[in-house]
Amino acid sequence: MADAGEVLLLNGPNLGRLGTRRPEVYGTTTLPEVVDDLAALLAGHGLGLRAVQDECEGHLIKAVHAAADGGCAGAIVNPGALMMNGWGLHDALEDFPPPWIEVHISNIWAREPFRHTSVLSPLADGVICGLGVEGYRLAALALARKAGRA
Amino acid sequence: MADAGEVLLLNGPNLGRLGTRRPEVYGTTTLPEVVDDLAALLAGHGLGLRAVQDECEGHLIKAVHAAADGGCAGAIVNPGALMMNGWGLHDALEDFPPPWIEVHISNIWAREPFRHTSVLSPLADGVICGLGVEGYRLAALALARKAGRA
Amino acid sequence: MADAGEVLLLNGPNLGRLGTRRPEVYGTTTLPEVVDDLAALLAGHGLGLRAVQDECEGHLIKAVHAAADGGCAGAIVNPGALMMNGWGLHDALEDFPPPWIEVHISNIWAREPFRHTSVLSPLADGVICGLGVEGYRLAALALARKAGRA
Amino acid sequence: MADAGEVLLLNGPNLGRLGTRRPEVYGTTTLPEVVDDLAALLAGHGLGLRAVQDECEGHLIKAVHAAADGGCAGAIVNPGALMMNGWGLHDALEDFPPPWIEVHISNIWAREPFRHTSVLSPLADGVICGLGVEGYRLAALALARKAGRA
Amino acid sequence: MADAGEVLLLNGPNLGRLGTRRPEVYGTTTLPEVVDDLAALLAGHGLGLRAVQDECEGHLIKAVHAAADGGCAGAIVNPGALMMNGWGLHDALEDFPPPWIEVHISNIWAREPFRHTSVLSPLADGVICGLGVEGYRLAALALARKAGRA
Amino acid sequence: MADAGEVLLLNGPNLGRLGTRRPEVYGTTTLPEVVDDLAALLAGHGLGLRAVQDECEGHLIKAVHAAADGGCAGAIVNPGALMMNGWGLHDALEDFPPPWIEVHISNIWAREPFRHTSVLSPLADGVICGLGVEGYRLAALALARKAGRA
Amino acid sequence: MADAGEVLLLNGPNLGRLGTRRPEVYGTTTLPEVVDDLAALLAGHGLGLRAVQDECEGHLIKAVHAAADGGCAGAIVNPGALMMNGWGLHDALEDFPPPWIEVHISNIWAREPFRHTSVLSPLADGVICGLGVEGYRLAALALARKAGRA
Amino acid sequence: MADAGEVLLLNGPNLGRLGTRRPEVYGTTTLPEVVDDLAALLAGHGLGLRAVQDECEGHLIKAVHAAADGGCAGAIVNPGALMMNGWGLHDALEDFPPPWIEVHISNIWAREPFRHTSVLSPLADGVICGLGVEGYRLAALALARKAGRA
Amino acid sequence: MADAGEVLLLNGPNLGRLGTRRPEVYGTTTLPEVVDDLAALLAGHGLGLRAVQDECEGHLIKAVHAAADGGCAGAIVNPGALMMNGWGLHDALEDFPPPWIEVHISNIWAREPFRHTSVLSPLADGVICGLGVEGYRLAALALARKAGRA
Amino acid sequence: MADAGEVLLLNGPNLGRLGTRRPEVYGTTTLPEVVDDLAALLAGHGLGLRAVQDECEGHLIKAVHAAADGGCAGAIVNPGALMMNGWGLHDALEDFPPPWIEVHISNIWAREPFRHTSVLSPLADGVICGLGVEGYRLAALALARKAGRA
Amino acid sequence: MADAGEVLLLNGPNLGRLGTRRPEVYGTTTLPEVVDDLAALLAGHGLGLRAVQDECEGHLIKAVHAAADGGCAGAIVNPGALMMNGWGLHDALEDFPPPWIEVHISNIWAREPFRHTSVLSPLADGVICGLGVEGYRLAALALARKAGRA
Amino acid sequence: MADAGEVLLLNGPNLGRLGTRRPEVYGTTTLPEVVDDLAALLAGHGLGLRAVQDECEGHLIKAVHAAADGGCAGAIVNPGALMMNGWGLHDALEDFPPPWIEVHISNIWAREPFRHTSVLSPLADGVICGLGVEGYRLAALALARKAGRA
Repeated sequence: MADAGEVLLLNGPNLGRLGTRRPEVYGTTTLPEVVDDLAALLAGHGLGLRAVQDECEGHLIKAVHAAADGGCAGAIVNPGALMMNGWGLHDALEDFPPPWIEVHISNIWAREPFRHTSVLSPLADGVICGLGVEGYRLAALALARKAGRA
Repeated sequence: MADAGEVLLLNGPNLGRLGTRRPEVYGTTTLPEVVDDLAALLAGHGLGLRAVQDECEGHLIKAVHAAADGGCAGAIVNPGALMMNGWGLHDALEDFPPPWIEVHISNIWAREPFRHTSVLSPLADGVICGLGVEGYRLAALALARKAGRA
Repeated sequence: MADAGEVLLLNGPNLGRLGTRRPEVYGTTTLPEVVDDLAALLAGHGLGLRAVQDECEGHLIKAVHAAADGGCAGAIVNPGALMMNGWGLHDALEDFPPPWIEVHISNIWAREPFRHTSVLSPLADGVICGLGVEGYRLAALALARKAGRA
Repeated sequence: MADAGEVLLLNGPNLGRLGTRRPEVYGTTTLPEVVDDLAALLAGHGLGLRAVQDECEGHLIKAVHAAADGGCAGAIVNPGALMMNGWGLHDALEDFPPPWIEVHISNIWAREPFRHTSVLSPLADGVICGLGVEGYRLAALALARKAGRA
Repeated sequence: MADAGEVLLLNGPNLGRLGTRRPEVYGTTTLPEVVDDLAALLAGHGLGLRAVQDECEGHLIKAVHAAADGGCAGAIVNPGALMMNGWGLHDALEDFPPPWIEVHISNIWAREPFRHTSVLSPLADGVICGLGVEGYRLAALALARKAGRA
Repeated sequence: MADAGEVLLLNGPNLGRLGTRRPEVYGTTTLPEVVDDLAALLAGHGLGLRAVQDECEGHLIKAVHAAADGGCAGAIVNPGALMMNGWGLHDALEDFPPPWIEVHISNIWAREPFRHTSVLSPLADGVICGLGVEGYRLAALALARKAGRA
Repeated sequence: MADAGEVLLLNGPNLGRLGTRRPEVYGTTTLPEVVDDLAALLAGHGLGLRAVQDECEGHLIKAVHAAADGGCAGAIVNPGALMMNGWGLHDALEDFPPPWIEVHISNIWAREPFRHTSVLSPLADGVICGLGVEGYRLAALALARKAGRA
Repeated sequence: MADAGEVLLLNGPNLGRLGTRRPEVYGTTTLPEVVDDLAALLAGHGLGLRAVQDECEGHLIKAVHAAADGGCAGAIVNPGALMMNGWGLHDALEDFPPPWIEVHISNIWAREPFRHTSVLSPLADGVICGLGVEGYRLAALALARKAGRA
Repeated sequence: MADAGEVLLLNGPNLGRLGTRRPEVYGTTTLPEVVDDLAALLAGHGLGLRAVQDECEGHLIKAVHAAADGGCAGAIVNPGALMMNGWGLHDALEDFPPPWIEVHISNIWAREPFRHTSVLSPLADGVICGLGVEGYRLAALALARKAGRA
Repeated sequence: MADAGEVLLLNGPNLGRLGTRRPEVYGTTTLPEVVDDLAALLAGHGLGLRAVQDECEGHLIKAVHAAADGGCAGAIVNPGALMMNGWGLHDALEDFPPPWIEVHISNIWAREPFRHTSVLSPLADGVICGLGVEGYRLAALALARKAGRA
Repeated sequence: MADAGEVLLLNGPNLGRLGTRRPEVYGTTTLPEVVDDLAALLAGHGLGLRAVQDECEGHLIKAVHAAADGGCAGAIVNPGALMMNGWGLHDALEDFPPPWIEVHISNIWAREPFRHTSVLSPLADGVICGLGVEGYRLAALALARKAGRA
Repeated sequence: MADAGEVLLLNGPNLGRLGTRRPEVYGTTTLPEVVDDLAALLAGHGLGLRAVQDECEGHLIKAVHAAADGGCAGAIVNPGALMMNGWGLHDALEDFPPPWIEVHISNIWAREPFRHTSVLSPLADGVICGLGVEGYRLAALALARKAGRA
C-alpha cells in the first residue's frame, strides 16, 4: 500500500514496451529507466515512488484504490488506450483525493481522431502532453511541489 | 462453486468502496454490511449468498461462469462502470440461465449522459435503480420469489 | 516466452466455456480439446503452440507482447467481445510483426448489428468466421503454410 | 450430378482467369491448378470434387440445384462480382442444405467500397477472406471435416 | 413458337424447385403440377399453355422474344429473384405487346426489405402476390378474360 | 478466338431484336444486317469482325476474355440493360487491354433517369450514343483508325 | 445560306485555337485542317460543308437559323464552354429540324465537375465524346448516312 | 437613335423566327406582323416604335444604351433565353430610366423548371406572360398610359 | 495583333457607357478618356495599349486570343457582368500566358451577393476593385512594373 | 496629427517583419524600405506620409481617429490578422471620411479558408490584393489622385 | 532583446492579477513571485528569463518578435483569453523558431466549452494545463532540458 | 485608483468620438458632456465618477483591475466593438465584484447581425440599449440604488 510519502505512477496497456516499441517515435528510454529516473528525482524531494504498469484496467483501478487508502502524495497517469474507454478507471479517479496528472508522451491532438478525446481529462488536476518521457518528470515535480516537498 | 440454493451478488469496479466513498451520497453502509444484510435476508428464505466484487471485468465474468455451472438461484448484478462498455460481461450473462437483476444505487438516468445506457440491461430480468442499497434487498426478495422461496 | 517455432493461440472473454456453452450451437468440443487438437496439428508441421485464454484484455495484451518478443510464427486471435472495444489489444497487435488471423466461431454477419464490425480486422492478415472450432485449425494451417512448414 | 461424396467448387465471373489476370496481385496459380490441388486434397479425405466456373449466374444456380439434389458434402463459393448483385444465387443458396463457405482471395474490406458488402455472406456457414488461393484449401478442409472425412 | 391461342408461363430462377423447396411454406405442389393444372384450366377457355422455367435471365428474355413474335394471348411472369435486378428482362417485357401479369407466391411486402420493390412491376398489367400457387390460376383466368375467352 | 486483326462486336440483352423491335424508333435494320455491314466495312480496312450477341451477361464476359487472349484490335460494346448492373462485365473489361468504345443506339440522356449512368463508361475509351445503328459503324471506323488501318 | 446538300460544322468559343492550344492534350491538328479534312470527306459523299467557328453565341445561333432555313443536311456541334450556359443556342437547336450531333474532343466525364453536364445533350440526335478530332469525322459520316449519301 | 416619342421593342435570341417556329404553339403571326401591328397601335397614341431583334446579347445591350440616350418613352423586352443568364442585359436595363415591361409569349411557369426564374424580372416595371403575341399589345398600351398618351 | 510591347485593356458589357452612366457613382470620365489616359501612361513606360470594349463575350475572347498570339505584356480585364457567367472568357484566359489583373470599378464586396464571386478571379495575378477608373491606371502601372518598364 | 496633406499608412500585426519573414514568399523588401519608397512617391505628388505599424489594434484605431481629425488625404490599410477579427478597427474606419484602401500582399483567396473573408472590405473604398508590396504603391497613387495631387 | 541564453515568459490579459484574483482557486502566489521563482530556477540552469505580461495582444506579439530576433532558448506562453481569438499572436508564433510550450493554470477541459479549443495549440511543442503556477516551472524545466541545460 | 464611493464609467473603442461621430444618429452630446452630466448626477447621490475611455482592450482591462482593487460602487460599461470579441475584458469583468451594467447607445438588436450577440452580457448585472446617452444616466441611477444611495 502506498503511503502519504509516495507518488503513484500508473501506466496503462502497452506502455511497458517503451524503448523497444517504435523507438524512432518514442526514443530508446525504457519504462524501467523512466521509473528509476523518477524514483531518484522524487527521492531528492523526500518522496517514494510506487510504479504500476499493467495491461489490465482492473489492476490499475486497484492501484488507485490502494493509493487513495494510503493517502499517497499524488498520481501520474498515462492511460494509454484506456483514454478511449477506461470508464472504470474514470470512476476510480473520480474518488481519488490526492492530486493526479494525466500524461501523454505524444501530442494526442496531432494523431488519429479517436485519440483526440480522453474520458479521463475532465477529472485530472493537470494534463501534460507532447513532451516525451520528460512529461513524467514534470508531473513528478508538480506533485512534489503540491506535497510541499519541493 | 455456487449451488442452486445460492444467490450470486456481483459488484463491479469501485463498488468495494461503498461506505467510505461519498458517504453524503451513498450513506455509511459498507459493502460487507450490505453482504451481511443480504445474507440474513436470504437465509430467512432458505437461500445462501455468494458475494463477489472485483475491479476486473474478467473476474466478474469468471464468477458468472462459476455460478452458471453451479446452477445458482439467481444473480444480483451492479456492474458499476461496466454498464458503459462491459461487452464481455454481456456475453457471459447471455449464457447465464438463472434469473438476474441489474441494480444501480443511484438513479443513472439523473446523472451524466454517458451513464444513461447500460449494455447489460437488454439481457436482465429486471432493473432497479436509484433506491440506494435498498435496491439490493429488493432484488434479493424478487429472486427469492422467483425461486419459490418467498 | 513464445519462440519463432511457436504459434500463439489467443482466446478472449467467455471462450473458455466452449463445449458447455450452448452446445447445440457450438458443439461439445471444449477449449482444452481445441488446444490439444491444434497442438497435434501444428506439431505435425514442426511448430509448437502457446495457448492463452483469458477473460481479461490485459492478459491477452501481455501474451501478444511475449509472442512479439519471442519472434513467434504467427497468431490466431479470437477476440470474443473485445472485437467491439478492445483498443488496448488493437494497439498491441499494431506492433506485432508476425502474420495473424482473426477467427470467429460463429458467422458474425448473421448476428446482431453490433457484432458486424471488428476494430481489429483492418489490421489482420486474414479473417475466418462461421466455421466453428474448425476455424482455428484452418488458421493454424494457413500460418504453418506462411511459415513454410506446410 | 454431384453426390454425397463430392464437394462443389463454385467460381463466379472472371475467376477462370486466375494466374494470368493481375499476377502481381493474385499470383501465378491458375484455376486448373487450384482445382487439381483441391481434388488431390479432397481425395485424401475420400471426397470427390465437382468444379464449376461460369460467367453466368444461371449456370451457377443450376450447379447449386444439382448439388443440392445430389446431397453433396458441401460447397465452396467464390462469387466474384456476383457478391454485388447475385440475388438469384442468393435464393438458390438459401435452399441449399449442405454446408457451404464463401471465399474471397483478396481482403474485400481493403478494396473499393462497392466490394465491402456481399449479399451472400449472411447465408454462408463460413467466410474466409484475404488468404489468397490458400483460402480454397482451408474451405475444402473445413468441409471434409464437416463431412466426417477428416 | 407460341401462337395467339397460347399463354406464356414464365418462372425465374429457383422456381423449378417448387414442391420440394420449403414444403411447409409453399406446399407440396410441384411446378409440373402447376403447369398441368394451368394447362387444363386454360384449355377450358380454349387456350394453350407454353411453360418456361429457367435459372438464366437470358433464357427468359429469349422466351419473351419468342412469345412476342408468336403473338401469344398473354403471359404470367414469376421473376423470382430477378425482381431485384432483372433490367434485361425489364427491357424485353417493355416490348411485349400482349397483356402480362406478375405473380409472386409469397407476399413480398411481408418479407425482407430487399424484396419489396420489383423493377418489373411498373410495366406489368397486373400484380398478384401472397396467394400461393393459386396466384397462377387467378392470373390465367384474368388473361382468358382479357382474351375474350372467359 | 479473336486475333489482333479482328474487332469484337458485343451486344447485350434484347439487342438481337433490332429491326423488329419498335421499328419506328430503331429502324428496320436487323442485327445480322448490322453485322454484315460492319464486317464489310472492317474488311475494307483489313480487319475481321467477331460478333457476339447474347441475353446472358456471362456469355459476353467470355467473349471479352477470348478477345483479350487473342489480342484483338478493339471492341465495340453495346451493353443494353447491363449498363445498369453489369458488374461482372465491368470486371472483365477492367482487364481488357485493347481500345473499346461504348455504343448506345438511343440517346440515353434523353430517356429515363435510370439510364443516365453507365457503370461501364468510366472504363471506356470513347462513348457514342443516339445515332442508331450508325453508331456501330462509327465506332468501327474509330477502332480501325486507332489500329492504323484507316 | 446553307442548302440541303450541306452540313453545318459549328464550333464554339476557343475552338479556333485547336492545334496550338495544349497540343500535348489536343494534338497538333488545327481547325482549318479539321475543316479541310471534313470537307473532303463529305465531298466524297456528295455533300458540302459550311464551317462556322465563333466566340459569340449569337453568331452560332444565326448559323443555326440559316442552316435551318436552308434545309441543310445536318449539323455537327462542339459547343465548347457553351455546354455550361448556352441557353440561347439550346433554344435555337430545339427548333432545328435536321439531325445534329454534339461532339466533345475530350471525355467530358473525366474532367472538372462543371463540365459533366451539357445543357444541349438532351436535344441532340447523338453525342460523341473522348475520340479526339476523329469525333468530327464520325459525326460527318453519320450525317452523310442520314442524308442518304453514304 | 430612339427619341422620347418612341417605344423600344426588344426581342432576344430566336424570336425573329415567330410564325414559322412551332406555329401550332405560337400561331402564324410573324415578328414583322407583330411589329406592324404594334406600330399602328402606338401611332394611334402618338408614339413611334423602334424594333430590335437580335441573337446576340451584346447587340440588345447596345439597343438599350441607344434608347436610354435617346430618352425613349419605354421598352417592351422579350429576352427569350437571356432570361436564364443575361446578366449583361440586366446591367444595361439597370441604367435604363424609362419604364419597361418584360413579355413572354408562353407561360414560363408552366414550362421546364429552368424557365421559371428570369434574372431580369426584379428590374422590370411589369411582367406579362402566357398571353401569346397579345402580350406585346398589352405592354404597349401600358406604356402609352404611363407616357400619358392613353 | 498585339505585340510584346502592348498591354491589352479588356472591358466587358456596358462598360462603354462610363461617364454618362450614373455619373454620381462612376464620375464623368468616359471610356475614351480612360483609354487615352492609359495610352499616355503606358507610353511613358515604353508600352503601347490595345483597348477593346464589347458587349459581346465573343469579341472579348477574340481579343484574348490575339493578345496571346502577339505575346503582349499583360492584360487588364474588367469583365463587367461576365464575372458571373463568362465561362468562355474563363477558358480563353486559362490559356493566356502573360500576367493579367482583374479590375472592378466599384467595390463588388459592398454590392449584391451575386457580385461577390467572380468565376475569373482564381485565374488572375491580382485583383483591384472599388477605386473607380483609377483602378485601370494602377493595373497598368503594375503590369509595366512586371514588364520591367517601371 | 496627420493633416490634409498626408496619407496614413496603417500596417497591422506582424507586418513590421516584412523582408525577414518568409522572404521566399514575401521578398526581401523591408517595411522601412516600403515606407521610404512610398514617402518619396507621395512627395512627388506633394503629399506627406504618416506610417503606423503596430501590433495593437487600439493604436491602429487611434491612428485612424487622429488621421480623421487631421483631415488626412486618405489611408492605406493592411490589417494583417485583424482582417479576421478587427471589429474595433472596423468601427473606426466606418467613421473615417477620407478615402482608404485595403491592401493584402498575397492573394487571400488562394490561402487558408479563415483568410478568405475580411471584416473590413465592405467599408473600404478599394481593395488591392495579390500584387506584393507593389500593392502599397498602387494604393498610394490612387489616393494621390483622389486628393487631386496626381 | 532576448538572447539565446534567455527564456521568454509570455502572459496574456488578466494574468497580472494572479495572487489576488480568486485566491481560493489560483492560490496566493503573485505573478512577480512566479517570475522571481522562474528566474531563480532558470538561473540554476544557466538561463536567463525575460518576462512579459500584458493586457494587449500587440505587446505580446512584439515580445515574440524580439525573442525571435534574439534567438532565445524557448518560450512559455499562457495566452489567457487570447486562446480564443489571438490570430495575430498565432501568426507571430507561426514564425517563431525556438521551442515553446502553451501553459494554462486551470484545466481548460473542465471549464466552459468556449475554452476547450485554443487557436494556438496546433503550433505548440507541448501543452501543460491545470497545474496552477507550477505549470510554468514545469515548462521552464522542459525548455532547459531541450536547451541542453538540464 | 477608484474607491468604494466611486462609479467606474468604461467606454470602449471609438466612443471618445461621441458628438462628432454621426451626430444625426447619436446627437451632439460629446463624451466629456456625458461625463460631466453623470458626475453631477452621481454627486447628488453622494458618489464620485471615474471615467475611462480607450481604444485598447488592454487599457480597459487595466481600469477594471484598478476599480476592482479600489472596491468601487459599480461600473457602467459600453464596450463598443469589444462586444463582438472582447474575451479578455470578459475575463476581467468575471472577477469584478461590484455590480456593473452594460450600456449600448443604439439598439444593437436593430443593427447588423454581427452586433446581436455580446460576449459580455452573460456576466452583466443588467443591460440597457437603444436609449441614447440617456442609457448612461439610467445605469448610474440603478447603481446608486444598488449602493443604497438612492
